[in-house]
Amino acid sequence: MNVIIVGFGFIGRKLVRAFYKKIDLIRNVDASFKVIGVSDSKGYLYDSKGLDLERLSYVKRLSEYSGKYREGGSTEEIIEKGEADLMVEATPTNINDGEPGLSFIKAALKKGIHVVTSNKGPLVVAFKELTSLAEKNDCLLLYEGTVAGAVPVFSLVRKCLQGDIIRRIVGILNGTTNYILSRMYFEGTSFELALKEARERGLTERDPSYDVDGIDAACKAVILANALMNRNVKFEDVKRTGIRRVTQEAISLAKKSKFAIKLISTIDKHIEVSPKLVPINHPLCVHGTLNAIHIETDLAREITLIGHGAGEETVSAVLNDVLTVMKETASPI
Amino acid sequence: MNVIIVGFGFIGRKLVRAFYKKIDLIRNVDASFKVIGVSDSKGYLYDSKGLDLERLSYVKRLSEYSGKYREGGSTEEIIEKGEADLMVEATPTNINDGEPGLSFIKAALKKGIHVVTSNKGPLVVAFKELTSLAEKNDCLLLYEGTVAGAVPVFSLVRKCLQGDIIRRIVGILNGTTNYILSRMYFEGTSFELALKEARERGLTERDPSYDVDGIDAACKAVILANALMNRNVKFEDVKRTGIRRVTQEAISLAKKSKFAIKLISTIDKHIEVSPKLVPINHPLCVHGTLNAIHIETDLAREITLIGHGAGEETVSAVLNDVLTVMKETASPI
Repeated sequence: MNVIIVGFGFIGRKLVRAFYKKIDLIRNVDASFKVIGVSDSKGYLYDSKGLDLERLSYVKRLSEYSGKYREGGSTEEIIEKGEADLMVEATPTNINDGEPGLSFIKAALKKGIHVVTSNKGPLVVAFKELTSLAEKNDCLLLYEGTVAGAVPVFSLVRKCLQGDIIRRIVGILNGTTNYILSRMYFEGTSFELALKEARERGLTERDPSYDVDGIDAACKAVILANALMNRNVKFEDVKRTGIRRVTQEAISLAKKSKFAIKLISTIDKHIEVSPKLVPINHPLCVHGTLNAIHIETDLAREITLIGHGAGEETVSAVLNDVLTVMKETASPI
Repeated sequence: MNVIIVGFGFIGRKLVRAFYKKIDLIRNVDASFKVIGVSDSKGYLYDSKGLDLERLSYVKRLSEYSGKYREGGSTEEIIEKGEADLMVEATPTNINDGEPGLSFIKAALKKGIHVVTSNKGPLVVAFKELTSLAEKNDCLLLYEGTVAGAVPVFSLVRKCLQGDIIRRIVGILNGTTNYILSRMYFEGTSFELALKEARERGLTERDPSYDVDGIDAACKAVILANALMNRNVKFEDVKRTGIRRVTQEAISLAKKSKFAIKLISTIDKHIEVSPKLVPINHPLCVHGTLNAIHIETDLAREITLIGHGAGEETVSAVLNDVLTVMKETASPI
């Protein structure tokens, strides 16, 4: 399987490193695995014989990988070469128009290339369009890394709860707000101070609104609803309230009654993101930057899945998707 | 796919009901699905054209399904007929010699029949023997229902964490002791009273030792270690301490320091079952009859999976295994 990686930021680099370190495990699934191209916003590396993963895992910028860098070359060019079987898309998230990821994913699917993405943007903007395009072109489109980082919620439902009907999903899907609310709960700090701390720890986006106003959590709720509950909802359909008005007083009061206040995404009849009281002994009530997803089904009744919602742990989800593509597209011997 | 069900107790009957209610979903995966035989300790029903799932889902005993019951007929007979593709084994658990399930599973695998089981006994007694036999005969042997009921830990690791290396597994794997310890923690009751309550609620085996002395949890730890961490351990290898000596005083003291005492199964360098202090804010710290499994890996770092560890929810796990067998053995079109 010939792989191209689009985007060489944090996730792209960590993924290359995981490919390098786990090459035996990967080749055991697909002996022909190689990374033939990597692009960023300024150019690309390409070698149909396969790039050297060791060298690639030590460079911070593609241009440092000597000899092969084509400055000014576009991602579309390496897609059009027609040699790739799988594209891993890890460009920066843009929830307004999904670009540049959206165009790259479309171009790849049209060319019959399977896609694994860790980028919410394209899926929030064009979920149905992309899944239809994938189906039409007989391609897999997997996106485990887009919701709750390393928490494998999509493959859990698709591979481990195949006979269950999903009735409702409730989750803590944004680690930054969970960090802030946990600081307020445990340390009694104010919202402002906890936000400042989150910023200092590099947990927030430049514009903290993305996290604290529930925008990020709403995007994830949209993807969950469309992917796992067969909805066709858009970002605008989410009823959204952030955590700016959650006061220390409210949290203290809740705490006295053995509740915590958490920013909860609910995918039910309606899709909603808002601060909610969660009993402290409920499995969903996790703290710090952890994410948690509580799935209600007809048979298993309730399954809760907890893990790290961001950071390099996300590579677990992306690598799992890559291995799934390899297994599911392998020709029977 | 022709299915036979061995054992028509609680799980067997609930499974038949799930097959009946979800027949469209199942036939969507495998149009040829039918249940051709069901056996219990006294005889069997058999019809190569397929039994009527509606009728079958309304009988409590096989003999009530009029016309087809062969009293005194053995499970071996319906295996030997050679028409089954998959056997679902749900006979009572026997951790001493694994029988009668062990013999049934061996007979089926030798005949090239795939096996799904919810019965710990055979796997505790003969894990390597059975998995080798399955491999030799090119059969699938799946057992999601054997550990933590509806909590799909085996498929989670195999399908959702394919690129991760599992470093350590820590779990609350016995719902009865978790119920007892939770009563002691929340209500301040004594061990004796909590055990009495658990008995009255039908949560314990006739011999409560199975639960309170950690025998059940140790069996599950053995299966997890062998299945997910490539060990070759037996029941005797588990260092085991039950909860009989956990006093109300110890629990109160722990509670003051924000810990709960839980019966924890640890699969690490050594395999151990013993009461341990768990921080009340740790994802593993679930209460009531819930089970929880905390998996430490190299990439995702930590994933916790929580759900119902016994009862009819287990059918979710068994049905998922059945659907997995259908998908993985389907001939490509």
